[in-house]
Amino acid sequence: MNLMKKIAVLTSGGDAPGMNAAIRAVVRKAIAAGMEIYGVRRGYEGLIDDDIVQMTSRDVGGILYRGGTVLRTARSERFMDPAWVDVAAENLRKREIEAIVVIGGDGTYRGGRELSQRGITVAGVPATIDNDLGYTDYTIGFDTAVNTVVELINKIRDTSDSHKRTTIMEVMGRSCGDIALYSGVASGADIILLPEIDMDIAKLVDRVRTGRELGKSHILIVKAEGVDMPTGELREMLESLTGQETKAVIPGYIQRGGDPTAHDRLVADVTGGMAIDLLENPDKRPADSFAVGVRGTKAFAVSLEQAITEKAEFRQDLYELAEVLS
Amino acid sequence: MNLMKKIAVLTSGGDAPGMNAAIRAVVRKAIAAGMEIYGVRRGYEGLIDDDIVQMTSRDVGGILYRGGTVLRTARSERFMDPAWVDVAAENLRKREIEAIVVIGGDGTYRGGRELSQRGITVAGVPATIDNDLGYTDYTIGFDTAVNTVVELINKIRDTSDSHKRTTIMEVMGRSCGDIALYSGVASGADIILLPEIDMDIAKLVDRVRTGRELGKSHILIVKAEGVDMPTGELREMLESLTGQETKAVIPGYIQRGGDPTAHDRLVADVTGGMAIDLLENPDKRPADSFAVGVRGTKAFAVSLEQAITEKAEFRQDLYELAEVLS
Amino acid sequence: MNLMKKIAVLTSGGDAPGMNAAIRAVVRKAIAAGMEIYGVRRGYEGLIDDDIVQMTSRDVGGILYRGGTVLRTARSERFMDPAWVDVAAENLRKREIEAIVVIGGDGTYRGGRELSQRGITVAGVPATIDNDLGYTDYTIGFDTAVNTVVELINKIRDTSDSHKRTTIMEVMGRSCGDIALYSGVASGADIILLPEIDMDIAKLVDRVRTGRELGKSHILIVKAEGVDMPTGELREMLESLTGQETKAVIPGYIQRGGDPTAHDRLVADVTGGMAIDLLENPDKRPADSFAVGVRGTKAFAVSLEQAITEKAEFRQDLYELAEVLS
Amino acid sequence: MNLMKKIAVLTSGGDAPGMNAAIRAVVRKAIAAGMEIYGVRRGYEGLIDDDIVQMTSRDVGGILYRGGTVLRTARSERFMDPAWVDVAAENLRKREIEAIVVIGGDGTYRGGRELSQRGITVAGVPATIDNDLGYTDYTIGFDTAVNTVVELINKIRDTSDSHKRTTIMEVMGRSCGDIALYSGVASGADIILLPEIDMDIAKLVDRVRTGRELGKSHILIVKAEGVDMPTGELREMLESLTGQETKAVIPGYIQRGGDPTAHDRLVADVTGGMAIDLLENPDKRPADSFAVGVRGTKAFAVSLEQAITEKAEFRQDLYELAEVLS
Repeated sequence: MNLMKKIAVLTSGGDAPGMNAAIRAVVRKAIAAGMEIYGVRRGYEGLIDDDIVQMTSRDVGGILYRGGTVLRTARSERFMDPAWVDVAAENLRKREIEAIVVIGGDGTYRGGRELSQRGITVAGVPATIDNDLGYTDYTIGFDTAVNTVVELINKIRDTSDSHKRTTIMEVMGRSCGDIALYSGVASGADIILLPEIDMDIAKLVDRVRTGRELGKSHILIVKAEGVDMPTGELREMLESLTGQETKAVIPGYIQRGGDPTAHDRLVADVTGGMAIDLLENPDKRPADSFAVGVRGTKAFAVSLEQAITEKAEFRQDLYELAEVLS
Repeated sequence: MNLMKKIAVLTSGGDAPGMNAAIRAVVRKAIAAGMEIYGVRRGYEGLIDDDIVQMTSRDVGGILYRGGTVLRTARSERFMDPAWVDVAAENLRKREIEAIVVIGGDGTYRGGRELSQRGITVAGVPATIDNDLGYTDYTIGFDTAVNTVVELINKIRDTSDSHKRTTIMEVMGRSCGDIALYSGVASGADIILLPEIDMDIAKLVDRVRTGRELGKSHILIVKAEGVDMPTGELREMLESLTGQETKAVIPGYIQRGGDPTAHDRLVADVTGGMAIDLLENPDKRPADSFAVGVRGTKAFAVSLEQAITEKAEFRQDLYELAEVLS
Repeated sequence: MNLMKKIAVLTSGGDAPGMNAAIRAVVRKAIAAGMEIYGVRRGYEGLIDDDIVQMTSRDVGGILYRGGTVLRTARSERFMDPAWVDVAAENLRKREIEAIVVIGGDGTYRGGRELSQRGITVAGVPATIDNDLGYTDYTIGFDTAVNTVVELINKIRDTSDSHKRTTIMEVMGRSCGDIALYSGVASGADIILLPEIDMDIAKLVDRVRTGRELGKSHILIVKAEGVDMPTGELREMLESLTGQETKAVIPGYIQRGGDPTAHDRLVADVTGGMAIDLLENPDKRPADSFAVGVRGTKAFAVSLEQAITEKAEFRQDLYELAEVLS
Repeated sequence: MNLMKKIAVLTSGGDAPGMNAAIRAVVRKAIAAGMEIYGVRRGYEGLIDDDIVQMTSRDVGGILYRGGTVLRTARSERFMDPAWVDVAAENLRKREIEAIVVIGGDGTYRGGRELSQRGITVAGVPATIDNDLGYTDYTIGFDTAVNTVVELINKIRDTSDSHKRTTIMEVMGRSCGDIALYSGVASGADIILLPEIDMDIAKLVDRVRTGRELGKSHILIVKAEGVDMPTGELREMLESLTGQETKAVIPGYIQRGGDPTAHDRLVADVTGGMAIDLLENPDKRPADSFAVGVRGTKAFAVSLEQAITEKAEFRQDLYELAEVLS
């Protein structure tokens, strides 16, 4: 059999808690499978710059528990240019590296597609706090980000309650509302504003007022960063229309950090592990280049192309449930 | 249509973080559906003792974030006796309560089956830290318990490292090894001992020794409480056979508490919500009495009978993955 | 002896974690001393509006662990007007309430002084996350706020590290730099910017550059909100002068919330307890109206006047130590 | 001036969160003062075995936030024997190391005294979770341990509440009751059992019963490990005498771990920093060998002899306050 001997791994795009766990799973599983495994630093930037080192089992000791990524990450402008992709592919080929595991989100997968078109086998492992990959139930980092937001909202609630305020909490997710939706549901937010749902100002003002009349001591609005209206503007408008003290909180990059939750570590382990499994076993792969994901607690794979094109489904049911429960 | 007008809800068996979230979801969804909803205190004990009160939306305000159960819970010896089940069923019937949502684990569902045989419609919502219900990916409370154990192991690691110790952490789960397996995987435990896998002492001793020879500063063993050998005995044996200082830690009931994770709250919301949906819509139910569960992030239902009889599948793949990655 | 029979308690100004613990200590100690104790809602606003209710031991059950204040709080514009202070004092007198425990910071104490000038005995309990009261080692809420900031910085570090960024974390404290100083020291911040120390831009830019040259993977700047230059402006200037990606994070009200630390609860207990002790025992008081504080772990009292006028000492030694250790 | 050129540092005895912060402070401050600094591994064991390496500023990068001790620690039987102490002292002298900073508790200081009697200047930095050094307000690690216990009690309360149980939580502290006292006060424990206070069984049973009659949903007993009666025995006795379900929880080594609190890091910084200050400046030292401590937030020094002999004062006032407030 034509066993794969050398593979590489990189993390790319925004960092996500659990990327380290995925690196560890990929490295140790690859070594156990008799492969040589190479780490690429700073994502596709490092691939272009030939910043590539062989990794041992020891190199990934003690990283399972830490947020961030020991391989570092970057968004690469240069990788948009086919000439630089050629350079990157050549850097792999000259080492006889036949395949690369790319850990990241949508942009990372698109970068991987470029490599796959140059004869490199690409395995995608889904890691982004945004949860915006449609083909998988969860992406690595999402569960941690949601729990972080829920904790932050807990803290806000104490002080908001004491002052009888309305608070707008702006959370991350780019064009995807999942962090806002899941953390809003889990926190019993009064109102959840998402890019997937048109904002109805009249209804919003009405709900703040009704909440007050029902005797609620504070009103919590969770707003995805992808919602059109800037948070500052919304705050002013709400304060003026409701006559209620309204504060905005934007925790920003705090949402990217933190030790990964058990769930994110587990997803990292099973997806990272399956990526190596499929690199070892071409017959089991859905396509030469592929992406792994999870359904429930189990890993599966689709072609890289499908992973890129499959749209994320909006959870209308969760949104409606939140409206009933809050 | 013959709309259900009055339903009840109880929590039974060991408490689990997220039970409160499930109570809140059931109560608010029922009220939104135009039902009267009654809370039964102390599980089947309260049902026998007629400790039943009508609940309002307000009664479940502010409980989403808290561990434990505001309805309290108990294990009921009396409910094993058909005569007492008759009393319990009569307490529901005299109030014209047609259905009851039972939140708990295997024993709770078995109790529910008794009621269903007396003409009460029973809806099971899976809540137990043990994750020992086979028909559902997750039970409410499991994710919180696993994250709690992972945090405790983090603390143990600091001190164990400083002293170059072997530590045995005994975790809950009764006859099910899932808490040990998932927390062991998520913590990178060196050795995971489960009731589902025969313990091989020679191999265990060998792995502790090998770990030391590889320069590991501490060896972490996660042991499920369902494993045959008592932890104290194992500790002594290991210390004597390996000549290494070996400590045991048994956090016990700490694993039952804590604010529920976002995941457990979400599972509580979607399962609690679906339980009411199906009580409202007999046509959608798989059987008159049924249990809800989750696959990935979505709720589904099976007959109560199936929920009781379907065996939990042991995740051999995870166990093997852990062996490779540690 | 002329025993005090009726006293009141309020929280005022910005809320601080541990205010609830202080309320509990005051209420239970007062009841144990045979007094009637009245809770005033929304600080001096409620005192003006006669929003005053008698409290029992039960009313403060389960609040020890929670951030915020069950009595709510407010900043009162009206209380600046002597006519409204007269109304407030009259609301106490008509109930034969002879003394009031005011829990808060500098503004709260100044309000208390107004009441003391109208014949009410005032006992100040120091609670503000800002730690800007000079007469006491610690104010209630400060330790929690510092630990919250340290946790948030921990999360920022993961992601900042992965991207090799400079991050500016703007923390609360109004004109006092203590939260920034203590959290900066505890986090090993590279640079701490305080209102008490003139900012030297050239030195700042130099330190960011030097940090990079020394191979630091990220540069962390903790900046007190009291520093003159707005954080957005500083960020732009630094990014432009250093050529390094620079991000700003402003966690805002998150810093006010959270369960109080053990230390804040303890300070609340010993100061709240001593306030009642001294109300019971006029001979032990330094003045009719007084404020309690802590030195190390022990409570002591000064006259209310001294508590208002004593300047907070800037901890130049800590600042210099931080420069050496970072 | 006869400037000290070479010094050493070790951690000894039980590890405590914040030891790493103290090591970092000592190393960086020493280097800033122009000294060479040597790390001794595994406490006095490593000193005997000549396990000593020079340390750089880099070696202590990133350790501020971690529990445990990178120098590791041990209890040394051999160091009880003067012949081995001679060997240890000789290992320092042959490198021309004139002074050593010993980070630990009572036993560590006693070991230091042996070295001081052989001409080595010894600086003690107080680090033990037990807080059993009388000359200082706080020891490094105590604040973290107390907060850990408070968190664990929080988790216990949820489940204990749901089942209406009595729970006995056994906490560390050896012969000192401070962890139990401070965590008991901070948690509003119903009963605190300390080695410093004789246990009165009749009163204990009475209080459990009274608590139940007052409608308390759970009774929480915090018991120091130094209390004479074993926890298992107490549990059985209480259950039998009160007729109430009673559970015991012994979190054990979990209490030694965890990231140090801001307070513990600060105490580590100011005490570690002062130790070096005084080694640099013989004129400022209270004696050739000395120990540093904190009063409130400031460091001070006493002779090593005084640090060993000064008795820890029992906080009777706190104990009595807890009785009133619970």
